[in-house]
Amino acid sequence: MRILRVVTFLVLFTLVTGHENLNSHMFPRPLIIEYPEPHHHQLKDEVQLQCTSWRFAVETNNLGPWKTIPEECGNYVRQYIEGGAYKMDIDRVSDEAGAYAKSRDLGADGKDVWVFDVDETLLSNLPYYSDHGHGLEVFDSVEFEKWVEKGMAPAIGSSLKLYQDVLSLGFKVFLLTGRGERHRGITVENLMNAGFRDWHKLILRGSDDHGKTATTFKSERRNEMVEEGFRILGNSGDQWSDLLGSSASNRSFKLPNPMYYIP
Amino acid sequence: MRILRVVTFLVLFTLVTGHENLNSHMFPRPLIIEYPEPHHHQLKDEVQLQCTSWRFAVETNNLGPWKTIPEECGNYVRQYIEGGAYKMDIDRVSDEAGAYAKSRDLGADGKDVWVFDVDETLLSNLPYYSDHGHGLEVFDSVEFEKWVEKGMAPAIGSSLKLYQDVLSLGFKVFLLTGRGERHRGITVENLMNAGFRDWHKLILRGSDDHGKTATTFKSERRNEMVEEGFRILGNSGDQWSDLLGSSASNRSFKLPNPMYYIP
Repeated sequence: MRILRVVTFLVLFTLVTGHENLNSHMFPRPLIIEYPEPHHHQLKDEVQLQCTSWRFAVETNNLGPWKTIPEECGNYVRQYIEGGAYKMDIDRVSDEAGAYAKSRDLGADGKDVWVFDVDETLLSNLPYYSDHGHGLEVFDSVEFEKWVEKGMAPAIGSSLKLYQDVLSLGFKVFLLTGRGERHRGITVENLMNAGFRDWHKLILRGSDDHGKTATTFKSERRNEMVEEGFRILGNSGDQWSDLLGSSASNRSFKLPNPMYYIP
Repeated sequence: MRILRVVTFLVLFTLVTGHENLNSHMFPRPLIIEYPEPHHHQLKDEVQLQCTSWRFAVETNNLGPWKTIPEECGNYVRQYIEGGAYKMDIDRVSDEAGAYAKSRDLGADGKDVWVFDVDETLLSNLPYYSDHGHGLEVFDSVEFEKWVEKGMAPAIGSSLKLYQDVLSLGFKVFLLTGRGERHRGITVENLMNAGFRDWHKLILRGSDDHGKTATTFKSERRNEMVEEGFRILGNSGDQWSDLLGSSASNRSFKLPNPMYYIP
Protein backbone atom coordinates (compact mmCIF):
# COMPACT_ATOMS: atom_id res chain seq x y z
CA MET A 1 0.00 0.00 0.00
CA ARG A 2 2.89 2.37 0.74
CA ILE A 3 4.16 2.10 -2.79
CA LEU A 4 0.70 3.04 -4.03
CA ARG A 5 0.69 6.09 -1.81
CA VAL A 6 4.13 7.08 -3.05
CA VAL A 7 3.11 6.72 -6.68
CA THR A 8 -0.07 8.69 -6.06
CA PHE A 9 1.91 11.33 -4.20
CA LEU A 10 4.50 11.58 -6.94
CA VAL A 11 1.85 11.82 -9.63
CA LEU A 12 0.01 14.59 -7.78
CA PHE A 13 3.29 16.24 -6.88
CA THR A 14 4.45 16.16 -10.48
CA LEU A 15 1.13 17.53 -11.68
CA VAL A 16 1.10 20.29 -9.07
CA THR A 17 4.74 21.31 -9.25
CA GLY A 18 5.73 20.49 -12.79
CA HIS A 19 2.62 20.60 -14.96
CA GLU A 20 3.88 23.56 -16.99
CA ASN A 21 6.86 21.43 -18.03
CA LEU A 22 4.79 18.35 -18.85
CA ASN A 23 4.81 16.99 -22.30
CA SER A 24 1.64 14.92 -22.13
CA HIS A 25 2.76 12.16 -24.51
CA MET A 26 5.70 11.41 -22.20
CA PHE A 27 3.50 10.79 -19.20
CA PRO A 28 3.31 7.11 -18.46
CA ARG A 29 -0.34 6.21 -18.87
CA PRO A 30 -2.70 4.78 -18.00
CA LEU A 31 -1.26 4.69 -14.48
CA ILE A 32 -4.07 2.53 -13.17
CA ILE A 33 -2.54 -0.59 -14.70
CA GLU A 34 0.61 -0.04 -12.65
CA TYR A 35 -1.16 -0.52 -9.31
CA PRO A 36 0.11 -3.38 -7.18
CA GLU A 37 -1.68 -6.57 -8.17
CA PRO A 38 -4.58 -7.78 -6.04
CA HIS A 39 -2.63 -10.69 -4.54
CA HIS A 40 -0.40 -8.22 -2.73
CA HIS A 41 -3.38 -7.05 -0.75
CA GLN A 42 -3.37 -8.23 2.85
CA LEU A 43 -6.75 -9.98 2.72
CA LYS A 44 -5.72 -11.67 -0.51
CA ASP A 45 -2.48 -12.75 1.17
CA GLU A 46 -4.45 -14.46 3.92
CA VAL A 47 -6.62 -16.30 1.38
CA GLN A 48 -3.47 -17.22 -0.53
CA LEU A 49 -1.94 -18.68 2.64
CA GLN A 50 -5.11 -20.56 3.60
CA CYS A 51 -5.61 -21.99 0.12
CA THR A 52 -1.98 -23.04 -0.18
CA SER A 53 -2.39 -24.83 3.14
CA TRP A 54 -5.60 -26.46 1.86
CA ARG A 55 -3.78 -27.55 -1.30
CA PHE A 56 -1.03 -29.16 0.78
CA ALA A 57 -3.65 -31.04 2.76
CA VAL A 58 -5.16 -32.24 -0.54
CA GLU A 59 -1.87 -33.29 -2.09
CA THR A 60 -0.63 -35.08 1.03
CA ASN A 61 -3.93 -36.96 1.34
CA ASN A 62 -4.66 -35.50 4.75
CA LEU A 63 -8.23 -34.55 3.86
CA GLY A 64 -11.18 -36.85 4.00
CA PRO A 65 -13.32 -37.18 0.87
CA TRP A 66 -14.36 -33.80 -0.57
CA LYS A 67 -16.80 -32.90 -3.32
CA THR A 68 -15.85 -29.36 -4.31
CA ILE A 69 -12.94 -27.04 -3.68
CA PRO A 70 -13.50 -24.39 -0.96
CA GLU A 71 -15.40 -21.48 -2.49
CA GLU A 72 -12.81 -18.96 -1.27
CA CYS A 73 -10.12 -20.92 -3.13
CA GLY A 74 -11.78 -20.69 -6.55
CA ASN A 75 -9.56 -17.88 -7.80
CA TYR A 76 -6.53 -19.43 -6.14
CA VAL A 77 -6.97 -22.75 -7.94
CA ARG A 78 -7.62 -21.06 -11.28
CA GLN A 79 -4.49 -18.95 -10.81
CA TYR A 80 -2.49 -22.04 -9.80
CA ILE A 81 -3.64 -23.91 -12.90
CA GLU A 82 -3.39 -21.09 -15.39
CA GLY A 83 -0.42 -19.20 -13.92
CA GLY A 84 2.23 -21.82 -14.58
CA ALA A 85 2.65 -23.34 -11.12
CA TYR A 86 0.58 -26.40 -12.03
CA LYS A 87 2.72 -27.05 -15.09
CA MET A 88 5.88 -26.54 -13.05
CA ASP A 89 4.70 -29.12 -10.51
CA ILE A 90 3.73 -31.60 -13.22
CA ASP A 91 7.03 -31.17 -15.04
CA ARG A 92 8.92 -31.78 -11.82
CA VAL A 93 7.02 -35.01 -11.16
CA SER A 94 7.91 -36.29 -14.63
CA ASP A 95 11.54 -35.28 -14.19
CA GLU A 96 11.79 -37.15 -10.89
CA ALA A 97 9.99 -40.16 -12.32
CA GLY A 98 12.23 -40.19 -15.38
CA ALA A 99 15.40 -40.03 -13.29
CA TYR A 100 14.15 -42.92 -11.16
CA ALA A 101 13.18 -44.96 -14.25
CA LYS A 102 16.67 -44.53 -15.72
CA SER A 103 18.26 -45.56 -12.40
CA ARG A 104 16.60 -48.99 -12.45
CA ASP A 105 18.20 -52.06 -14.01
CA LEU A 106 15.42 -53.95 -15.70
CA GLY A 107 15.19 -57.72 -15.87
CA ALA A 108 15.64 -59.52 -19.19
CA ASP A 109 12.22 -61.15 -18.85
CA GLY A 110 10.20 -58.05 -19.82
CA LYS A 111 8.29 -58.14 -16.56
CA ASP A 112 9.12 -54.66 -15.27
CA VAL A 113 6.06 -52.46 -15.28
CA TRP A 114 5.16 -48.80 -15.17
CA VAL A 115 1.52 -48.08 -14.39
CA PHE A 116 -0.11 -44.88 -15.59
CA ASP A 117 -3.49 -43.50 -14.70
CA VAL A 118 -5.18 -41.69 -17.62
CA ASP A 119 -7.19 -38.59 -16.62
CA GLU A 120 -5.06 -35.70 -15.30
CA THR A 121 -2.06 -38.01 -15.60
CA LEU A 122 -1.61 -38.71 -19.34
CA LEU A 123 -4.59 -36.77 -20.69
CA SER A 124 -5.69 -33.37 -19.47
CA ASN A 125 -9.35 -32.51 -18.96
CA LEU A 126 -8.56 -28.85 -18.35
CA PRO A 127 -10.70 -27.76 -21.32
CA TYR A 128 -13.64 -29.32 -19.46
CA TYR A 129 -12.73 -28.17 -15.97
CA SER A 130 -11.97 -24.61 -16.96
CA ASP A 131 -15.58 -24.47 -18.18
CA HIS A 132 -16.76 -25.86 -14.84
CA GLY A 133 -15.01 -23.68 -12.27
CA HIS A 134 -11.89 -25.85 -11.81
CA GLY A 135 -13.65 -27.90 -9.15
CA LEU A 136 -16.02 -25.28 -7.74
CA GLU A 137 -18.95 -27.18 -9.26
CA VAL A 138 -20.05 -30.58 -7.99
CA PHE A 139 -18.89 -33.28 -10.43
CA ASP A 140 -21.53 -33.99 -13.07
CA SER A 141 -20.84 -37.42 -14.52
CA VAL A 142 -23.31 -36.98 -17.41
CA GLU A 143 -21.69 -33.74 -18.53
CA PHE A 144 -18.19 -35.12 -18.04
CA GLU A 145 -18.92 -38.25 -20.06
CA LYS A 146 -20.13 -36.09 -22.94
CA TRP A 147 -16.70 -34.45 -22.84
CA VAL A 148 -14.96 -37.84 -22.66
CA GLU A 149 -16.88 -39.03 -25.71
CA LYS A 150 -15.55 -36.14 -27.73
CA GLY A 151 -12.12 -37.77 -27.42
CA MET A 152 -10.43 -34.39 -27.43
CA ALA A 153 -8.45 -34.39 -24.19
CA PRO A 154 -4.92 -33.17 -24.94
CA ALA A 155 -1.77 -34.92 -23.75
CA ILE A 156 0.06 -33.60 -20.71
CA GLY A 157 3.36 -32.77 -22.36
CA SER A 158 5.85 -33.93 -19.76
CA SER A 159 3.82 -37.08 -19.10
CA LEU A 160 4.02 -37.96 -22.79
CA LYS A 161 7.77 -37.54 -22.59
CA LEU A 162 7.97 -39.75 -19.49
CA TYR A 163 5.72 -42.31 -21.20
CA GLN A 164 8.01 -42.48 -24.20
CA ASP A 165 11.11 -42.60 -21.97
CA VAL A 166 9.92 -45.55 -19.89
CA LEU A 167 8.91 -47.40 -23.07
CA SER A 168 12.38 -46.82 -24.53
CA LEU A 169 13.95 -48.09 -21.33
CA GLY A 170 12.06 -51.36 -21.76
CA PHE A 171 9.23 -51.01 -19.24
CA LYS A 172 5.89 -52.61 -20.00
CA VAL A 173 3.26 -49.92 -19.73
CA PHE A 174 -0.10 -50.63 -18.12
CA LEU A 175 -2.82 -48.00 -18.31
CA LEU A 176 -5.15 -48.33 -15.33
CA THR A 177 -8.10 -45.96 -15.42
CA GLY A 178 -11.36 -45.45 -13.63
CA ARG A 179 -13.08 -44.83 -16.98
CA GLY A 180 -15.68 -47.45 -17.80
CA GLU A 181 -15.36 -50.14 -20.48
CA ARG A 182 -18.07 -48.40 -22.53
CA HIS A 183 -15.55 -45.61 -23.18
CA ARG A 184 -12.83 -47.97 -24.40
CA GLY A 185 -13.12 -47.06 -28.06
CA ILE A 186 -12.96 -43.31 -27.66
CA THR A 187 -10.28 -43.60 -24.96
CA VAL A 188 -8.00 -45.58 -27.28
CA GLU A 189 -8.66 -43.09 -30.06
CA ASN A 190 -7.99 -40.11 -27.81
CA LEU A 191 -4.79 -41.62 -26.40
CA MET A 192 -3.49 -42.50 -29.87
CA ASN A 193 -4.30 -39.05 -31.26
CA ALA A 194 -2.52 -37.49 -28.28
CA GLY A 195 0.61 -39.51 -29.06
CA PHE A 196 0.38 -42.45 -26.65
CA ARG A 197 1.19 -45.79 -28.28
CA ASP A 198 2.45 -49.27 -27.53
CA TRP A 199 0.90 -49.82 -24.12
CA HIS A 200 0.87 -53.43 -22.98
CA LYS A 201 -2.65 -53.28 -21.58
CA LEU A 202 -5.40 -50.72 -21.08
CA ILE A 203 -7.52 -51.63 -18.07
CA LEU A 204 -10.89 -49.91 -17.59
CA ARG A 205 -13.63 -50.47 -15.04
CA GLY A 206 -15.76 -53.45 -16.00
CA SER A 207 -19.29 -54.29 -14.95
CA ASP A 208 -17.93 -56.27 -11.97
CA ASP A 209 -16.19 -53.20 -10.66
CA HIS A 210 -19.35 -51.19 -10.14
CA GLY A 211 -19.47 -49.61 -6.69
CA LYS A 212 -15.84 -50.31 -5.83
CA THR A 213 -13.64 -47.43 -4.72
CA ALA A 214 -10.81 -46.61 -7.10
CA THR A 215 -8.37 -47.76 -4.42
CA THR A 216 -9.99 -51.20 -4.34
CA PHE A 217 -10.46 -51.51 -8.11
CA LYS A 218 -6.89 -50.48 -8.85
CA SER A 219 -5.40 -52.60 -6.06
CA GLU A 220 -7.20 -55.67 -7.42
CA ARG A 221 -5.83 -55.03 -10.90
CA ARG A 222 -2.31 -54.52 -9.56
CA ASN A 223 -2.65 -57.75 -7.55
CA GLU A 224 -3.39 -59.54 -10.82
CA MET A 225 -0.29 -58.03 -12.44
CA VAL A 226 1.85 -59.24 -9.54
CA GLU A 227 0.22 -62.68 -9.69
CA GLU A 228 1.16 -62.81 -13.39
CA GLY A 229 4.78 -62.23 -12.42
CA PHE A 230 5.04 -58.55 -13.25
CA ARG A 231 7.13 -56.26 -11.06
CA ILE A 232 5.53 -52.83 -10.60
CA LEU A 233 8.45 -50.45 -10.36
CA GLY A 234 6.73 -47.15 -11.10
CA ASN A 235 3.21 -45.77 -10.85
CA SER A 236 2.05 -42.30 -11.90
CA GLY A 237 -1.30 -40.89 -10.86
CA ASP A 238 -2.99 -37.67 -9.82
CA GLN A 239 -5.09 -39.34 -7.10
CA TRP A 240 -3.84 -41.15 -4.03
CA SER A 241 -6.38 -43.83 -4.93
CA ASP A 242 -4.19 -44.50 -7.98
CA LEU A 243 -1.20 -45.16 -5.77
CA LEU A 244 -2.24 -46.58 -2.39
CA GLY A 245 -3.59 -50.02 -1.52
CA SER A 246 -2.19 -53.47 -2.16
CA SER A 247 0.56 -54.38 -4.64
CA ALA A 248 1.72 -50.79 -4.43
CA SER A 249 4.50 -49.73 -6.75
CA ASN A 250 8.14 -49.61 -5.70
CA ARG A 251 7.98 -45.84 -6.25
CA SER A 252 4.84 -43.81 -6.72
CA PHE A 253 4.58 -40.41 -8.36
CA LYS A 254 1.77 -38.12 -7.34
CA LEU A 255 0.79 -35.58 -9.97
CA PRO A 256 -0.94 -32.48 -8.64
CA ASN A 257 -4.71 -32.20 -8.82
CA PRO A 258 -6.43 -29.56 -6.73
CA MET A 259 -9.69 -29.82 -8.71
CA TYR A 260 -11.30 -33.09 -7.65
CA TYR A 261 -11.01 -36.07 -5.36
CA ILE A 262 -11.64 -39.73 -6.16
CA PRO A 263 -11.77 -42.14 -3.20
CA MET B 1 9.45 -4.36 -12.19
CA ARG B 2 7.12 -1.99 -14.00
CA ILE B 3 6.10 -0.25 -10.81
CA LEU B 4 9.77 0.23 -9.98
CA ARG B 5 10.40 1.70 -13.40
CA VAL B 6 7.43 4.03 -13.02
CA VAL B 7 8.64 5.25 -9.64
CA THR B 8 12.15 5.74 -10.97
CA PHE B 9 10.78 7.51 -14.03
CA LEU B 10 8.58 9.75 -11.93
CA VAL B 11 11.39 10.59 -9.56
CA LEU B 12 13.74 11.47 -12.41
CA PHE B 13 10.95 13.25 -14.25
CA THR B 14 10.10 15.27 -11.16
CA LEU B 15 13.74 16.13 -10.60
CA VAL B 16 14.28 17.10 -14.23
CA THR B 17 11.06 19.01 -14.85
CA GLY B 18 10.12 20.32 -11.46
CA HIS B 19 13.31 20.82 -9.52
CA GLU B 20 12.94 24.59 -9.37
CA ASN B 21 9.59 24.15 -7.61
CA LEU B 22 10.85 21.55 -5.19
CA ASN B 23 10.80 22.17 -1.54
CA SER B 24 13.29 19.55 -0.44
CA HIS B 25 11.67 18.72 2.91
CA MET B 26 8.47 17.76 1.06
CA PHE B 27 10.30 15.21 -1.04
CA PRO B 28 9.47 11.73 0.16
CA ARG B 29 12.76 10.33 1.40
CA PRO B 30 14.57 8.13 1.59
CA LEU B 31 12.83 6.77 -1.47
CA ILE B 32 14.84 3.55 -1.37
CA ILE B 33 12.74 2.14 1.48
CA GLU B 34 9.61 2.55 -0.62
CA TYR B 35 10.79 0.14 -3.26
CA PRO B 36 8.67 -2.94 -3.73
CA GLU B 37 9.54 -5.56 -1.14
CA PRO B 38 11.96 -8.28 -2.22
CA HIS B 39 9.28 -10.95 -2.63
CA HIS B 40 7.50 -8.82 -5.23
CA HIS B 41 10.63 -8.81 -7.29
CA GLN B 42 10.38 -10.94 -10.37
CA LEU B 43 13.45 -13.04 -9.64
CA LYS B 44 12.24 -13.60 -6.09
CA ASP B 45 8.82 -14.57 -7.43
CA GLU B 46 10.47 -17.19 -9.60
CA VAL B 47 12.40 -18.59 -6.62
CA GLN B 48 9.18 -18.57 -4.59
CA LEU B 49 7.42 -20.53 -7.32
CA GLN B 50 10.29 -23.00 -7.74
CA CYS B 51 10.65 -23.58 -4.00
CA THR B 52 6.91 -24.03 -3.52
CA SER B 53 7.05 -26.62 -6.29
CA TRP B 54 10.03 -28.29 -4.61
CA ARG B 55 8.16 -28.33 -1.29
CA PHE B 56 5.19 -30.04 -2.96
CA ALA B 57 7.51 -32.65 -4.38
CA VAL B 58 8.88 -33.21 -0.87
CA GLU B 59 5.52 -33.41 0.84
CA THR B 60 4.00 -35.73 -1.77
CA ASN B 61 7.02 -38.05 -1.56
CA ASN B 62 7.88 -37.55 -5.21
CA LEU B 63 11.56 -36.88 -4.53
CA GLY B 64 14.19 -39.52 -4.08
CA PRO B 65 16.32 -39.34 -0.92
CA TRP B 66 17.80 -35.87 -0.32
CA LYS B 67 20.40 -34.65 2.15
CA THR B 68 19.92 -30.89 2.25
CA ILE B 69 17.33 -28.44 1.03
CA PRO B 70 18.19 -26.62 -2.23
CA GLU B 71 20.44 -23.71 -1.43
CA GLU B 72 18.20 -21.24 -3.26
CA CYS B 73 15.30 -22.34 -1.03
CA GLY B 74 17.04 -21.49 2.25
CA ASN B 75 15.21 -18.21 2.75
CA TYR B 76 11.98 -19.70 1.47
CA VAL B 77 12.02 -22.51 4.03
CA ARG B 78 12.94 -20.16 6.87
CA GLN B 79 10.10 -17.86 5.84
CA TYR B 80 7.70 -20.81 5.59
CA ILE B 81 8.64 -22.00 9.08
CA GLU B 82 8.79 -18.65 10.80
CA GLY B 83 6.09 -16.81 8.88
CA GLY B 84 3.11 -18.83 10.10
CA ALA B 85 2.46 -21.08 7.10
CA TYR B 86 4.13 -24.08 8.77
CA LYS B 87 1.97 -23.68 11.86
CA MET B 88 -1.12 -23.27 9.70
CA ASP B 89 -0.33 -26.52 7.88
CA ILE B 90 0.34 -28.38 11.13
CA ASP B 91 -2.85 -27.11 12.74
CA ARG B 92 -4.84 -28.23 9.73
CA VAL B 93 -3.39 -31.73 9.91
CA SER B 94 -4.38 -32.01 13.58
CA ASP B 95 -7.86 -30.69 12.84
CA GLU B 96 -8.38 -33.24 10.09
CA ALA B 97 -6.97 -36.04 12.23
CA GLY B 98 -9.14 -35.03 15.17
CA ALA B 99 -12.30 -34.98 13.04
CA TYR B 100 -11.45 -38.44 11.70
CA ALA B 101 -10.70 -39.78 15.20
CA LYS B 102 -14.10 -38.58 16.47
CA SER B 103 -15.84 -40.16 13.48
CA ARG B 104 -14.67 -43.67 14.37
CA ASP B 105 -16.61 -46.05 16.59
CA LEU B 106 -14.06 -47.80 18.75
CA GLY B 107 -14.33 -51.41 19.83
CA ALA B 108 -14.96 -52.30 23.47
CA ASP B 109 -11.77 -54.37 23.61
CA GLY B 110 -9.34 -51.43 23.83
CA LYS B 111 -7.52 -52.55 20.72
CA ASP B 112 -7.92 -49.40 18.61
CA VAL B 113 -4.60 -47.66 18.15
CA TRP B 114 -3.26 -44.26 17.15
CA VAL B 115 0.45 -44.23 16.29
CA PHE B 116 2.49 -41.07 16.72
CA ASP B 117 6.00 -40.39 15.56
CA VAL B 118 7.94 -38.16 17.98
CA ASP B 119 10.33 -35.67 16.31
CA GLU B 120 8.57 -32.95 14.27
CA THR B 121 5.29 -34.72 15.09
CA LEU B 122 4.83 -34.42 18.86
CA LEU B 123 8.03 -32.60 19.76
CA SER B 124 9.56 -29.78 17.77
CA ASN B 125 13.29 -29.53 17.12
CA LEU B 126 12.97 -26.07 15.64
CA PRO B 127 15.28 -24.56 18.28
CA TYR B 128 17.97 -26.90 16.91
CA TYR B 129 17.16 -26.52 13.22
CA SER B 130 16.87 -22.75 13.31
CA ASP B 131 20.49 -22.79 14.52
CA HIS B 132 21.43 -25.09 11.63
CA GLY B 133 19.94 -23.39 8.60
CA HIS B 134 16.57 -25.19 8.61
CA GLY B 135 18.02 -28.03 6.58
CA LEU B 136 20.67 -26.15 4.59
CA GLU B 137 23.36 -27.98 6.57
CA VAL B 138 23.99 -31.71 6.18
CA PHE B 139 22.54 -33.55 9.18
CA ASP B 140 25.10 -33.95 11.96
CA SER B 141 23.99 -36.81 14.20
CA VAL B 142 26.54 -36.00 16.93
CA GLU B 143 25.35 -32.40 17.21
CA PHE B 144 21.72 -33.39 17.00
CA GLU B 145 22.06 -36.01 19.73
CA LYS B 146 23.57 -33.40 22.02
CA TRP B 147 20.40 -31.40 21.48
CA VAL B 148 18.21 -34.47 22.09
CA GLU B 149 20.02 -35.14 25.38
CA LYS B 150 19.09 -31.68 26.62
CA GLY B 151 15.49 -32.89 26.65
CA MET B 152 14.23 -29.44 25.82
CA ALA B 153 12.23 -29.96 22.63
CA PRO B 154 8.90 -28.16 23.01
CA ALA B 155 5.53 -29.74 22.23
CA ILE B 156 3.84 -28.96 18.95
CA GLY B 157 0.69 -27.34 20.29
CA SER B 158 -1.96 -28.77 17.99
CA SER B 159 -0.36 -32.23 18.15
CA LEU B 160 -0.62 -32.16 21.95
CA LYS B 161 -4.30 -31.32 21.59
CA LEU B 162 -4.81 -34.18 19.11
CA TYR B 163 -2.89 -36.50 21.43
CA GLN B 164 -5.14 -35.65 24.34
CA ASP B 165 -8.25 -35.92 22.17
CA VAL B 166 -7.47 -39.42 20.88
CA LEU B 167 -6.67 -40.56 24.44
CA SER B 168 -10.02 -39.20 25.67
CA LEU B 169 -11.77 -40.99 22.83
CA GLY B 170 -10.32 -44.28 24.05
CA PHE B 171 -7.51 -44.91 21.57
CA LYS B 172 -4.40 -46.68 22.76
CA VAL B 173 -1.44 -44.50 21.89
CA PHE B 174 1.79 -45.99 20.55
CA LEU B 175 4.82 -43.76 20.14
CA LEU B 176 7.04 -45.10 17.38
CA THR B 177 10.27 -43.16 16.93
CA GLY B 178 13.56 -43.51 15.11
CA ARG B 179 15.39 -42.32 18.24
CA GLY B 180 17.65 -44.99 19.72
CA GLU B 181 17.01 -46.88 22.97
CA ARG B 182 19.93 -45.06 24.58
CA HIS B 183 17.81 -41.91 24.48
CA ARG B 184 14.82 -43.53 26.20
CA GLY B 185 15.32 -41.80 29.55
CA ILE B 186 15.60 -38.28 28.24
CA THR B 187 12.87 -38.87 25.65
CA VAL B 188 10.40 -39.92 28.34
CA GLU B 189 11.41 -36.94 30.45
CA ASN B 190 11.09 -34.53 27.53
CA LEU B 191 7.71 -35.92 26.49
CA MET B 192 6.35 -35.74 30.04
CA ASN B 193 7.62 -32.22 30.56
CA ALA B 194 6.02 -31.20 27.27
CA GLY B 195 2.66 -32.55 28.46
CA PHE B 196 2.48 -35.99 26.83
CA ARG B 197 1.26 -38.72 29.21
CA ASP B 198 -0.43 -42.09 29.30
CA TRP B 199 0.98 -43.64 26.15
CA HIS B 200 0.54 -47.39 25.92
CA LYS B 201 4.03 -48.03 24.57
CA LEU B 202 7.07 -46.03 23.53
CA ILE B 203 9.02 -47.91 20.85
CA LEU B 204 12.57 -46.79 20.03
CA ARG B 205 15.18 -48.29 17.73
CA GLY B 206 16.92 -51.21 19.42
CA SER B 207 20.31 -52.71 18.65
CA ASP B 208 18.64 -55.17 16.22
CA ASP B 209 17.29 -52.30 14.17
CA HIS B 210 20.66 -50.92 13.23
CA GLY B 211 20.93 -50.24 9.51
CA LYS B 212 17.22 -50.66 8.79
CA THR B 213 15.41 -47.89 7.00
CA ALA B 214 12.76 -46.16 9.05
CA THR B 215 10.14 -47.60 6.70
CA THR B 216 11.30 -51.14 7.48
CA PHE B 217 11.79 -50.59 11.21
CA LYS B 218 8.40 -48.96 11.63
CA SER B 219 6.61 -51.47 9.41
CA GLU B 220 8.01 -54.33 11.51
CA ARG B 221 6.80 -52.73 14.70
CA ARG B 222 3.36 -52.09 13.22
CA ASN B 223 3.25 -55.71 12.05
CA GLU B 224 3.80 -56.74 15.69
CA MET B 225 0.95 -54.51 16.82
CA VAL B 226 -1.38 -56.09 14.28
CA GLU B 227 -0.20 -59.59 15.29
CA GLU B 228 -1.10 -58.70 18.88
CA GLY B 229 -4.62 -57.91 17.73
CA PHE B 230 -4.39 -54.14 17.65
CA ARG B 231 -6.21 -52.19 14.94
CA ILE B 232 -4.19 -49.20 13.71
CA LEU B 233 -6.81 -46.60 12.85
CA GLY B 234 -4.64 -43.48 12.80
CA ASN B 235 -0.98 -42.66 12.28
CA SER B 236 0.62 -39.21 12.48
CA GLY B 237 4.12 -38.54 11.18
CA ASP B 238 6.18 -35.90 9.41
CA GLN B 239 8.01 -38.43 7.21
CA TRP B 240 6.49 -40.76 4.65
CA SER B 241 8.67 -43.46 6.22
CA ASP B 242 6.47 -43.08 9.31
CA LEU B 243 3.38 -43.86 7.26
CA LEU B 244 4.18 -46.16 4.35
CA GLY B 245 5.06 -49.85 4.34
CA SER B 246 3.24 -52.84 5.78
CA SER B 247 0.44 -52.77 8.36
CA ALA B 248 -0.23 -49.21 7.28
CA SER B 249 -2.84 -47.30 9.22
CA ASN B 250 -6.44 -46.97 8.11
CA ARG B 251 -5.81 -43.22 7.75
CA SER B 252 -2.41 -41.56 7.77
CA PHE B 253 -1.71 -37.92 8.54
CA LYS B 254 1.38 -36.33 7.05
CA LEU B 255 2.71 -33.37 8.99
CA PRO B 256 4.80 -30.94 6.98
CA ASN B 257 8.57 -31.11 7.15
CA PRO B 258 10.58 -29.28 4.50
CA MET B 259 13.82 -29.49 6.54
CA TYR B 260 14.98 -33.08 6.33
CA TYR B 261 14.28 -36.48 4.82
CA ILE B 262 14.43 -39.88 6.50
CA PRO B 263 14.21 -42.94 4.22
